[in-house]
Amino acid sequence: MAEFSIIDTYFNRKNGNSVDLGVGDDSALLTPPPQQQLVICTDTLIAGRHYPLDTSPHAIGWKSVAVNLSDIAAMGAKPHSILLALSLPQIDNDWLKGFSQGLYDCCDQFGVSLIGGDTTQSPHLTISVTALGWVDIGKAVPRSGAQVGDYICVSGQVGDAAFGLRHLGHPLQQRLDYPTPRCQLGQQLKGLAHSMIDVSDGLAQDLGHILAASQVGAEIELNQLPVDAALKKLQQETQWQYALAGGDDYELCFTISPQNYEALLQQQLDINISKIGQITKNLGLTFLKNGVDCPIQFHGYQHFA
Amino acid sequence: MAEFSIIDTYFNRKNGNSVDLGVGDDSALLTPPPQQQLVICTDTLIAGRHYPLDTSPHAIGWKSVAVNLSDIAAMGAKPHSILLALSLPQIDNDWLKGFSQGLYDCCDQFGVSLIGGDTTQSPHLTISVTALGWVDIGKAVPRSGAQVGDYICVSGQVGDAAFGLRHLGHPLQQRLDYPTPRCQLGQQLKGLAHSMIDVSDGLAQDLGHILAASQVGAEIELNQLPVDAALKKLQQETQWQYALAGGDDYELCFTISPQNYEALLQQQLDINISKIGQITKNLGLTFLKNGVDCPIQFHGYQHFA
Repeated sequence: MAEFSIIDTYFNRKNGNSVDLGVGDDSALLTPPPQQQLVICTDTLIAGRHYPLDTSPHAIGWKSVAVNLSDIAAMGAKPHSILLALSLPQIDNDWLKGFSQGLYDCCDQFGVSLIGGDTTQSPHLTISVTALGWVDIGKAVPRSGAQVGDYICVSGQVGDAAFGLRHLGHPLQQRLDYPTPRCQLGQQLKGLAHSMIDVSDGLAQDLGHILAASQVGAEIELNQLPVDAALKKLQQETQWQYALAGGDDYELCFTISPQNYEALLQQQLDINISKIGQITKNLGLTFLKNGVDCPIQFHGYQHFA
Repeated sequence: MAEFSIIDTYFNRKNGNSVDLGVGDDSALLTPPPQQQLVICTDTLIAGRHYPLDTSPHAIGWKSVAVNLSDIAAMGAKPHSILLALSLPQIDNDWLKGFSQGLYDCCDQFGVSLIGGDTTQSPHLTISVTALGWVDIGKAVPRSGAQVGDYICVSGQVGDAAFGLRHLGHPLQQRLDYPTPRCQLGQQLKGLAHSMIDVSDGLAQDLGHILAASQVGAEIELNQLPVDAALKKLQQETQWQYALAGGDDYELCFTISPQNYEALLQQQLDINISKIGQITKNLGLTFLKNGVDCPIQFHGYQHFA
């Protein structure tokens, strides 16, 4: 089967947002909505590295979109469309059917269109997705805006996906296989949060990017970390390890003024928010247990260990 | 070395066009120029498949950008920026230095910025680039606009890259390693050409996409195919095979009314244009030799043979 047949068979569905020209030409064409900035990112999934080798093709398709929409959400932007660069060892129609279904399921859930891509043969399955979104001009939430005194918040639970990876078959594996990009929350935080990042490499490491970009420090209250009931049964140190160094949760970590935090809580949110600490003038990341210094070392996911 | 160090060391140069937020946040941010449509595409290079394994890292970096800018050019658009999804087996600083230099050299030559990306570890070197460009609203040149009576033209020479691949060390290998996207010509054809595609899989196959999308046929005069002096020494059938089925030339193939063709020739062009045939109402691709039917079978590059 040639590249063209793969695209026609699996990746040529009409869906989501309208585009001026989609799959099937040299490039896709979009007319920008008025008064919006383009938000764009790309993320790659490598078989056996970003998901277990026996992950279902449907979950791989879902996740390849979700991790990118999470980066769009972390800017406070509304996702619009994706491009898919798919490198496959061979044509496996069952795999392609499941993968494309998972990809479209995630697109449909978040109102996103597949508008272009490239399919090629490679010794190793590699999936790079590029995601596009739009945000009101000047309203995007960068990593660099954290201010001293901001509350530090995180959505949902952290450590779930890492626990699921360590305990395949446990219900938390669902969080590893089918992460939920926080698209609605991200857009609600536009104009409220001072800085934001999505938690892909571990909360401590990802928060560290906010601190570095904003040239501030942070205090984190360990007892406030939102962890699943399954993690609460573990030793405290192990819980924290999952919560702070576990990757792949795709929750949003953001900093927000106390005043805006109150405003946020007045809104209807589709996911819980936990206040886990505060931005400080003193650089570095300090951990507290019930308000008392509790020094620990955490390392997030290193792409090249 | 972590992903973050690779990006800081090799891919964090300021260059080309201004962006509102570039490498180093969850996503990049761009403000669309007024009255323009966004043009976007993605193309993957797989080591050993899209270039010989011993290709210099500088050439790989160049080519990974060039093949994408060629897709932008084929829409009649002006290239603006790229994102890089780079999957590497290991950290090889010499390789990264050469690769990033080649990538930036191509960016600089065509006024393009690297605005984001993702670096990850993979068993097999895989490079996916996404390219963005802008075109006046309604002026993009699609594949689907060919009209009966249009001249069929191609820029530069075809068959060079395939000949270079078969004869490594020959000067034509340069055309394989360092393809030149026809960015200026592409923009000059905006408003003049009726349909356009870039020649990546072989002229016959790529022209076939124009014919299918436009629901027309074509006659090609074999003696008009622009081939290099090195190819002219070969048997005629072999020449034609290179010219029609050889991929990787990244020339532009377009159809244009006779009137607009004359207007095009009045302009200053940075590359030769050859008129090789004409669009017909009869479907299919017909080959002529000095005006007489000369049936031959050609197959372009199949991504999954």
